Amino acid sequence: MVKLVGEAMKTTQSAPSVSYGFTMRLAYANRIGMFGRIVNTIGKHGGDLGAVDIVTVDTTMMTRDITVRARDASHQEEILAAVRRLAGVKVVNVSDRVFLLHLGGKISIQNKVPLTTRDTLSMAYTPGVARVCEAIAAEPRKAWQLTIKGNSVAVVSDGTAVLGLGDIGPEAAMPVMEGKAMLFKEFAGIDAYPICLRTKEPDEIVATVKHLSVGFGGINLEDISAPRCFEIERRLGEEVNIPVFHDDQHGTAVVVLAALHNALRLAKQKLERVRIVICGAGAAGVAVSQMLLRRGARDLVVCDRQGIVEEGRLAELNASKAWLAQHTNPRKLRGSLGDALRGANVFIGVSGPGLLHPKDLKRMASKPIVFALANPTPEIMPEEAARVAFIVATGRSDYPNQINNVLAFPGIFRGALDVRARRITEEMKHAAAWAIASCIGPSELSAEYIVPSVFNREVVRRVAEAVRRAAIRTGVARKKS
Amino acid sequence: MVKLVGEAMKTTQSAPSVSYGFTMRLAYANRIGMFGRIVNTIGKHGGDLGAVDIVTVDTTMMTRDITVRARDASHQEEILAAVRRLAGVKVVNVSDRVFLLHLGGKISIQNKVPLTTRDTLSMAYTPGVARVCEAIAAEPRKAWQLTIKGNSVAVVSDGTAVLGLGDIGPEAAMPVMEGKAMLFKEFAGIDAYPICLRTKEPDEIVATVKHLSVGFGGINLEDISAPRCFEIERRLGEEVNIPVFHDDQHGTAVVVLAALHNALRLAKQKLERVRIVICGAGAAGVAVSQMLLRRGARDLVVCDRQGIVEEGRLAELNASKAWLAQHTNPRKLRGSLGDALRGANVFIGVSGPGLLHPKDLKRMASKPIVFALANPTPEIMPEEAARVAFIVATGRSDYPNQINNVLAFPGIFRGALDVRARRITEEMKHAAAWAIASCIGPSELSAEYIVPSVFNREVVRRVAEAVRRAAIRTGVARKKS
Repeated sequence: MVKLVGEAMKTTQSAPSVSYGFTMRLAYANRIGMFGRIVNTIGKHGGDLGAVDIVTVDTTMMTRDITVRARDASHQEEILAAVRRLAGVKVVNVSDRVFLLHLGGKISIQNKVPLTTRDTLSMAYTPGVARVCEAIAAEPRKAWQLTIKGNSVAVVSDGTAVLGLGDIGPEAAMPVMEGKAMLFKEFAGIDAYPICLRTKEPDEIVATVKHLSVGFGGINLEDISAPRCFEIERRLGEEVNIPVFHDDQHGTAVVVLAALHNALRLAKQKLERVRIVICGAGAAGVAVSQMLLRRGARDLVVCDRQGIVEEGRLAELNASKAWLAQHTNPRKLRGSLGDALRGANVFIGVSGPGLLHPKDLKRMASKPIVFALANPTPEIMPEEAARVAFIVATGRSDYPNQINNVLAFPGIFRGALDVRARRITEEMKHAAAWAIASCIGPSELSAEYIVPSVFNREVVRRVAEAVRRAAIRTGVARKKS
Repeated sequence: MVKLVGEAMKTTQSAPSVSYGFTMRLAYANRIGMFGRIVNTIGKHGGDLGAVDIVTVDTTMMTRDITVRARDASHQEEILAAVRRLAGVKVVNVSDRVFLLHLGGKISIQNKVPLTTRDTLSMAYTPGVARVCEAIAAEPRKAWQLTIKGNSVAVVSDGTAVLGLGDIGPEAAMPVMEGKAMLFKEFAGIDAYPICLRTKEPDEIVATVKHLSVGFGGINLEDISAPRCFEIERRLGEEVNIPVFHDDQHGTAVVVLAALHNALRLAKQKLERVRIVICGAGAAGVAVSQMLLRRGARDLVVCDRQGIVEEGRLAELNASKAWLAQHTNPRKLRGSLGDALRGANVFIGVSGPGLLHPKDLKRMASKPIVFALANPTPEIMPEEAARVAFIVATGRSDYPNQINNVLAFPGIFRGALDVRARRITEEMKHAAAWAIASCIGPSELSAEYIVPSVFNREVVRRVAEAVRRAAIRTGVARKKS
């Protein structure tokens, strides 16, 4: 679930998925054998049969809703066309489960008390509310306690780097931001609201977020393209007194660090001693590099589309890549990703589909660790990587070791809000990574289980606790308990 | 519930109110007569006894929670002090019901489906959501259908004119904006989110709201001081393609027009023929004037703190008051509110407490109509006004004829969102006023019943329907049904 930055992905899923699930309403003669023919047709064309419900039935006709998973949109079409060709079967209508789930949006507002009596109306609104307003005017800190500020996060995007889709605009980014708000609620009980901005200007984004930050306890920046995202986050961090967290950078870095920590435990290797190659120098690549360096990594090489990011290329590099050129690549390598991988112990891909060729993988040191995190199609398919690698992790939910930001950001914000943190420090991020890693005990740790499941509710508890403590320790907490 | 603009209100409520309700936990010897003494003491000091609950009881001691309504904060203190003086009674703690209701905020986010399985996760978020994003990128209008945009309103304030409290800052405005969001949900099922801005600059407010308007179907401006509110609303209306509605202006004007319509029906008078005096030239006063003029009113005089707004004062008037001077006051009156009221048929107060003196009221034409809407303390107390007036209306819930914006804005936005309106036109506002007035049938109409109750659910239905039709008729609806 690590996202690609600024690169369109036209590749397809390899297996049928609920993401391409659809429901056909079929009417056909109520005769023995008809249903079997339909099911066979779906199966022959590679569709996965899901729920089957009867809608109406009489002695002559049967109407059923049949849910099918396909691999992608054209596979949907193929299956449908095959069913339509069946004699005596009428496709009444087709509904797409993913689109149905999005109709009318995925979140709503809920009132904590109903306003059905004069009494509640005059306590929640005028005239009663005036006393609460006056109390906050006298002491603005009370807004943390007496308004939603203390539990609310703005999920802000300009729609320039959405999933693997790139710059699709702020309207089209809304479904992702709503989904993110759902994750905040589901995993951490946080009230997050999606805010997509009709501007790509860093100055305007900074000003807008700064102005609207009053009622929020935190800002989650999302899907803003590199290198603009670095400047926007840095400036906002200076201008507002609540946490500003660009999840594509730091959430990814925290989970990668957690996974790498456990992978190295298993491989009995030290971070300070291994050779690491990162493929991808966008938001995620830069943040992962910085976090690994701070944690003690020494031999780190980053590659972008042109190859190794190194000092010889300074003239053409943007500020963040220039920083990488100056702070990584201690052996002064030049050349391609393949050159960088010679003798490397760890590959971390935060780039695009298929970029790690099997022949390059074979150049790595023995028992390499491969994190191929491009999603949905990784830098190398896990089956292929597993022929050589000691440990393989991806961003996908259908393979072991899913490296997913949802392990990090709910707990990080939960912890930060709980102590009303002014910002999210390095210590808080490192504490979060350690907490995630610690969810897998020594006896559980294995090559196929280096990170906990996204549905493990223990993770958010541990991360929040670790983040709270780190915030208090480093002096950014407004509340001390 | 009409709000005062830019003027602090230090007056008090006349009767005990739930807005000043508090709960005392009292521990006392479990003896006959003790509870009676406590109740008598509360009564003697004018407190209204509410719920009484036993917390713990044994043979020697009794602990009870006793809820009491007071008139104001100092009355709360008086009652508490009297109870504390009672021998053998210990006040364990005191909680304020209004503050308790505000703890942690008054609204929350709800997910429409729980994200507890991989399947929902991959439909609501990656990878499934990508298809929805692509559909919107190809056709941005689909955001109305596939995201919360179609049912969401941003409630935006800069905290410069909050209730009667004035410029108390954006943090302190939050409880009102949350309350407003609750009203949207409760009365119209609209998902509104409160956004308070840390800037008072019209340029910055316009830019911020414009940038964040992407994910919203409407913008409700609230509690922004005049005359800045006029410019902000006008410019936003030009720069965004969703309704921008300053409720303090237009909501108030719509409800006043509805009430006046019914009052004149009852008085058998014509709007074109009556003399109207408006006290208050802030946001509400200007909007009410403009709406009455458009509806056909001819003899309209507006007063501010300096007296009649007239052309002789043009040099010192801001743009909106200058407009009033040039478009009202056809008989070229000069002088005070008292001078304006001589022979007037209608008084509309949107100003401050006690500004209409009984002697000025007596100068009005016979059977005058008095709308004293300052809240909580009106321009003249209803008991006083009733000695002279034919019809009296206030903004208060404890007197007949409550002129309350909640009769207007939920239905107006419901109607606008239903047809995806580009803006809210004059026709839509007039249709809303007519719909509110029509909720009282000819046989029901009386001097004490010229507007429907805020809890009459028929109002929002009728207003929304009227607004939808007016939007389609005037060509601002994106949807035609």
